[in-house]
Amino acid sequence: MKTIEPKILKGFRDFLPQEAKKRQYVINLLKKVFESYGFEPLETPALEYEEILLGKYGDEGDKLMYRFTDRGGRKVALRYDQTVPLARVVAQYQNEFPMPFKRYQIQNVWRADNTQKGRFREFLQCDADIVGSSSSLADSEIISLAERSLEKLGFKNFTTLVNSRTVLKNSKASLNFIKALDKQDKLSKDEFLRLLSIAKESDKEAYEYLKNSKPEDDSSLREIFNNKNLNLFYMPTLARGLDYYTGIIFELKIDGYSAGSVCGGGRYDNLIGLFANKQIPAVGFAFGFDRLIEAMEELNLFPGNLTATKVLVTIFSEELKEKSLETASFLRSKGINTELYIDGSANLEKQLKYADKKGIPFAIVIGPDEVKDNTITLRSMMTREQKSLPISEAIKNFKVNT
Amino acid sequence: MKTIEPKILKGFRDFLPQEAKKRQYVINLLKKVFESYGFEPLETPALEYEEILLGKYGDEGDKLMYRFTDRGGRKVALRYDQTVPLARVVAQYQNEFPMPFKRYQIQNVWRADNTQKGRFREFLQCDADIVGSSSSLADSEIISLAERSLEKLGFKNFTTLVNSRTVLKNSKASLNFIKALDKQDKLSKDEFLRLLSIAKESDKEAYEYLKNSKPEDDSSLREIFNNKNLNLFYMPTLARGLDYYTGIIFELKIDGYSAGSVCGGGRYDNLIGLFANKQIPAVGFAFGFDRLIEAMEELNLFPGNLTATKVLVTIFSEELKEKSLETASFLRSKGINTELYIDGSANLEKQLKYADKKGIPFAIVIGPDEVKDNTITLRSMMTREQKSLPISEAIKNFKVNT
Repeated sequence: MKTIEPKILKGFRDFLPQEAKKRQYVINLLKKVFESYGFEPLETPALEYEEILLGKYGDEGDKLMYRFTDRGGRKVALRYDQTVPLARVVAQYQNEFPMPFKRYQIQNVWRADNTQKGRFREFLQCDADIVGSSSSLADSEIISLAERSLEKLGFKNFTTLVNSRTVLKNSKASLNFIKALDKQDKLSKDEFLRLLSIAKESDKEAYEYLKNSKPEDDSSLREIFNNKNLNLFYMPTLARGLDYYTGIIFELKIDGYSAGSVCGGGRYDNLIGLFANKQIPAVGFAFGFDRLIEAMEELNLFPGNLTATKVLVTIFSEELKEKSLETASFLRSKGINTELYIDGSANLEKQLKYADKKGIPFAIVIGPDEVKDNTITLRSMMTREQKSLPISEAIKNFKVNT
Repeated sequence: MKTIEPKILKGFRDFLPQEAKKRQYVINLLKKVFESYGFEPLETPALEYEEILLGKYGDEGDKLMYRFTDRGGRKVALRYDQTVPLARVVAQYQNEFPMPFKRYQIQNVWRADNTQKGRFREFLQCDADIVGSSSSLADSEIISLAERSLEKLGFKNFTTLVNSRTVLKNSKASLNFIKALDKQDKLSKDEFLRLLSIAKESDKEAYEYLKNSKPEDDSSLREIFNNKNLNLFYMPTLARGLDYYTGIIFELKIDGYSAGSVCGGGRYDNLIGLFANKQIPAVGFAFGFDRLIEAMEELNLFPGNLTATKVLVTIFSEELKEKSLETASFLRSKGINTELYIDGSANLEKQLKYADKKGIPFAIVIGPDEVKDNTITLRSMMTREQKSLPISEAIKNFKVNT
């Protein structure tokens, strides 16, 4: 039989255990913070009717969306973000959950984008939103949640850049000029000055207006800037791409990580109304998961060892296998994460190498001497020290998993 | 603007917080058990090249697979199970992880099946497999893992039905007869007797052979039946549908839950060889997540309250808002899951109702009296008792989240 070449689609990724454990580490921490603020999980399907998603993300979004016709002739599309599905859900089940509705959602989205460094066709988004409140307290809570999330992950220095769509609107800047301003990060000072020099007169005036504006001038910004627990920086030229924002907009940037913002969000008071027969205000954010991981790698924020296994019970010989099985069962019953080496034919050296490769801190050997003395030999994989002792003594070396 | 009807595709589901929390509860417990046995997480993409998946699940599988051509003209298919992607991964990165490779995988799969009670087009699978060992210790560990998982979820009475493909092969039963035997669960005694009476002579003989067979006769079954920690029942007519099994096969059934087995698996020593240029043995199982949830509901195994929030800090008035904000920040800094009511205009009654609906056990009220006395009023949502006390006293009522 011909072998099928094992290959993967461009822009898609396998996450082998090393990488997958890092992802779970971050997801678990984020969930904890989200839940500590009273946010609850929501899941929506990977596939939606195409009409639910089309036209919500601008032309670019429609172009990048994965769309196809299913066997039943339905036009369907793969999830493109988590905000539009949230809007659909809120409209569909309006009376089934208490408002304000605080939900988080951590699922993959798909975009047929050009693949390049750090850009993928399947990637995870971590969203948190508050639906049903137009209070600036909601804005404040959302930004606070984003900032506490970064802290929990170990980031010490970061800033939340904040602006409001109202400010941009009041400036009367043209759409193209706003787009250009939004990308000034990527320009050199000279390029930026050139951009200004060739701008229309009205846009030059708009720029002056923005430069001289203050958060206190905008009612929604004023309130959140009063909250001294937040780490805000007013950036009147911040625009953010998505069409649906109506109020405050923000991005979180981490000091020492230059690839871009790791989180973006804002208020969108009209999106849900597209599906509901009334306006329902909302505010929220999405963490870009891949950038978070990258930033954590660069700043060395992952724990040294993410291996959950505390000990490998080796198999000395076919005859003594039972003893190892019993020991593994005993350790597990005590809540100790235990791996049993499951290939009886491998020699001890190979088994210890396996423990090393998987980052398991201890190994247990049970040979004829140990059986005679009713002990086990406990080996520290790090120091290579080993000693024989009763199993009841040995377990004191392991932290119990709760 | 015309409102878009908020609707969802047939066979697809939204999981609102109530349901999503139950799912997370089960997933977290399963992960814990999987990790306590040394299994590590793996993630594969939702989309694969169609040729990777086609032909691995029989004709039925090919028919039910979601397939389409992407913008780049590639023929792609949505993940149909997690075993074939595992086989592809193992072949593709053979040298990147220590063998035997123990991985678990908890992701959605998609099948364009007829929708009916308990059958969906998008559903979660929870797989665990050991790759690279043909030892019957691996079979034993896999079954042990499945059984301990059910115990951890709270199931007390269940059985693992076990058979081997070798036994079936040795019986010389015809494929059709094996398929019929496999479905005998769904037949009445009379129907089953009729099935036997119309069987070919060779199949009648095969049935006698199977009936009289013992697990001790088969070398791989003998070993696992020696493991007294397992709760096995030999069922020589068990066949399981999937084409790729080569050795032991098993299903876990829960007493008192009649909708079917909640877990199925077996040994498949040739599947990975389709992608690799050598044979790599493997054994594993998949939990049917929806059935697990259903069985847990029926047997009442979910904790009464899955709400992570410990307390709702209400907002007494616009003027006293700051006090509530401060209190919420303080509680969170102490590791207490705290929700701040984020709509300042709602009256207290509405806020307390919100706490009730979300299942939050306590509410805190900070009005003018409390501010004056430097206390807070703590209200138990269950008993409706309330008392005023300093916040430093109040926090003793909450379990800290670690």
